[in-house]
Amino acid sequence: MADFDPTLYVITDAEEADEAVLLTRLEGALAGGATLAQLRDKYRGDGALLRLARRAKTLCASYGVPLIIDDRVDVALAAGADGVHVGPEDLPVAEARRLMGPGKIVGATAKTVAAARAAEGDGADYLGVGAIYPTATKVRTVITEVAVLQDICRAVRIPALAIGGLRADNLGILAGSGAAGVCVVTAVMRADRPAAAAADILRAFQNLPGNRTA
Amino acid sequence: MADFDPTLYVITDAEEADEAVLLTRLEGALAGGATLAQLRDKYRGDGALLRLARRAKTLCASYGVPLIIDDRVDVALAAGADGVHVGPEDLPVAEARRLMGPGKIVGATAKTVAAARAAEGDGADYLGVGAIYPTATKVRTVITEVAVLQDICRAVRIPALAIGGLRADNLGILAGSGAAGVCVVTAVMRADRPAAAAADILRAFQNLPGNRTA
Repeated sequence: MADFDPTLYVITDAEEADEAVLLTRLEGALAGGATLAQLRDKYRGDGALLRLARRAKTLCASYGVPLIIDDRVDVALAAGADGVHVGPEDLPVAEARRLMGPGKIVGATAKTVAAARAAEGDGADYLGVGAIYPTATKVRTVITEVAVLQDICRAVRIPALAIGGLRADNLGILAGSGAAGVCVVTAVMRADRPAAAAADILRAFQNLPGNRTA
Repeated sequence: MADFDPTLYVITDAEEADEAVLLTRLEGALAGGATLAQLRDKYRGDGALLRLARRAKTLCASYGVPLIIDDRVDVALAAGADGVHVGPEDLPVAEARRLMGPGKIVGATAKTVAAARAAEGDGADYLGVGAIYPTATKVRTVITEVAVLQDICRAVRIPALAIGGLRADNLGILAGSGAAGVCVVTAVMRADRPAAAAADILRAFQNLPGNRTA
């Protein structure tokens, strides 16, 4: 598996049609301290997605940050990305791992301890756990209690990251949860100043009681 | 490349939500003489698509017919399918070939001689050329003249298949074109009797002046 720092995982806005806007915001997130990036897209054809993924990969590489592709193992492989994230509707974790090979990052979504253990057993390198808060990017979201996040963090050895509506001013709820990081979309990618927003969230997470400091 | 017979290439209805209905119709097409099958889906999540692809692969294998997956190289690999078809909006032919490896079938869409030659050079095993007639499955379709199909058949060594609105009673237009086969969706997959429809189309194509006979 590729080495990665899960502290601040910034995910692109899947509905951003403008490639230049998307890449500019991603660059802001990277400049602000994102440690991991994900390209999420529900909009483009596969050829366009591959071209965007290659540009995002070059951008992330210039910041030394791994790029994960949402859902699409084939696009991740073709773009030379660092990994893939699979959710409950996507290819199974075991298939993603088999196709990606051992050297790449495979992330999974987990809402229960059982799902977290299964994903770890199937080869996931990290877990996204949530939604902690309601989120603008998912229409129907089941809220995951921080207590469940805490249970998951205790049950698995791989890092678990909190996702869902998290911002610098509301992530105090994660104190003591054991979360290895936070995933954000809206709070950074739809911010007026993505770099400042990323830096604020990174600082807030690192300053949580019980977390390491910057 | 896997060996295949391009004579009658039946493609599933991408909007068929009912898995049992889809598989029953596919089985009819196979029983009626389809020589190649493609799973096309614009409806399912990736996990559901993979499960369907595995069932379709088992079904096709029982008839000794290769199964091609539309668009999704990762799903094709995970399902152990025989190949992938990539259109102009999909992953490039060269990427599909690289990810699938040399032993699998890679199909491409071509509407011009230049596109056909490029796809052949990038590793395509066959070409879908059309739409010959307007089709119910594509909203905006540019009609490809049979003269262009003929030029493509002369320009490349790989088989070129005619696609688009073809039925047993209208494929006479292909006589002398050099087409190695016909691709059909609606005429078989939305037929009352898919097996009889497939058999009729196969017979009509084989009986075209200049074609081999059954």
